[in-house]
Amino acid sequence: MPKIVDHDERRREIAAVVWRLIATRGLSAVSMRTIAEEAGYANGALATYFAGKDELLRFAFAHIYQATNERVAHLIGDARGLVGLRIFCREVMPLTDETLLEARLATTLWQRAMYDPAMAQLNTDVMDAWRTRIAGFLDDARTAGEIDADVDTALETDALLTSLMGMQVMGVLTRETFDPARQVEISERFIATLGGLPPA
Amino acid sequence: MPKIVDHDERRREIAAVVWRLIATRGLSAVSMRTIAEEAGYANGALATYFAGKDELLRFAFAHIYQATNERVAHLIGDARGLVGLRIFCREVMPLTDETLLEARLATTLWQRAMYDPAMAQLNTDVMDAWRTRIAGFLDDARTAGEIDADVDTALETDALLTSLMGMQVMGVLTRETFDPARQVEISERFIATLGGLPPA
Repeated sequence: MPKIVDHDERRREIAAVVWRLIATRGLSAVSMRTIAEEAGYANGALATYFAGKDELLRFAFAHIYQATNERVAHLIGDARGLVGLRIFCREVMPLTDETLLEARLATTLWQRAMYDPAMAQLNTDVMDAWRTRIAGFLDDARTAGEIDADVDTALETDALLTSLMGMQVMGVLTRETFDPARQVEISERFIATLGGLPPA
Repeated sequence: MPKIVDHDERRREIAAVVWRLIATRGLSAVSMRTIAEEAGYANGALATYFAGKDELLRFAFAHIYQATNERVAHLIGDARGLVGLRIFCREVMPLTDETLLEARLATTLWQRAMYDPAMAQLNTDVMDAWRTRIAGFLDDARTAGEIDADVDTALETDALLTSLMGMQVMGVLTRETFDPARQVEISERFIATLGGLPPA
């Protein structure tokens, strides 16, 4: 079904244009017109792929999380427990150019989610999925004896997710202090409070 | 100098209108025209108080932090160390209607700070001031023997600030899970990793 593949591919290409526009010029620069111009589409042709700006921004938002999940899936191999958790954290935190761009987009789209119920729901769904993911790493860590049996893994999960989302903001807006090395120290500190791992 | 007092008072009143507009209708609803309408000023009269929208938003941003600092100053009395830190955390986290509104504004204005160097600088200055504040609580806690001598207070400070900023997002966008009780549990968990306090 080459047509459908093309359609999805076009949508991803258009979304990439949207990320670049948001990252370089801000959300206020993003309109169906500027997107069409940047992506090389005739005025109106964008409507074949996205019904409007809201749908396009939701697609861009969803893609951030999907890209993170795909990187984790690629890197994680057989890693479980705290080693798996460390890999996950390092793909979520804005350590690289790619994840820094994602953090800029996330910060931008959070603001949007406050006034767009569909985007807020998408954010809630992803946060729930990541909570399940983190809790899974912690359950494995407990089974493997890496963390104590009496650790409240649900609370640790929520604390870590809060920290990772805070890192999106700190790593973007106060990157001089919250540089990649500091981000890693903060996530390693978290792992250390759980029982710790050898350095990596 | 009643005129100057009036001028400052008017600026704060106008800023309050801006917060309400952002909170209810989003940043995109905020223009000098809508602000003038909501605040009951003739078109153009706002310019007596603010040179433009950017200056107004920076003033609103600064006020969030100032309001938090004033509440902490009012509540803290002789409290120091971990007790002081607990009071500080509970004024920063979006626990009440007032701090929830502040968190909504912070999330909105972070996005703006990515493209407004003056607002980014303001955010950096406030983050630095809060890092100094948190580090002060931790130093006092160490002096008082509440936390161990070998705790890396600078790292703990950055970890806590990251968590508190993450809470702004979680408490706004995923408040069903990250409700006030959960926020308090997460901050108490942090205090517990430092050595702990009796419940409050």
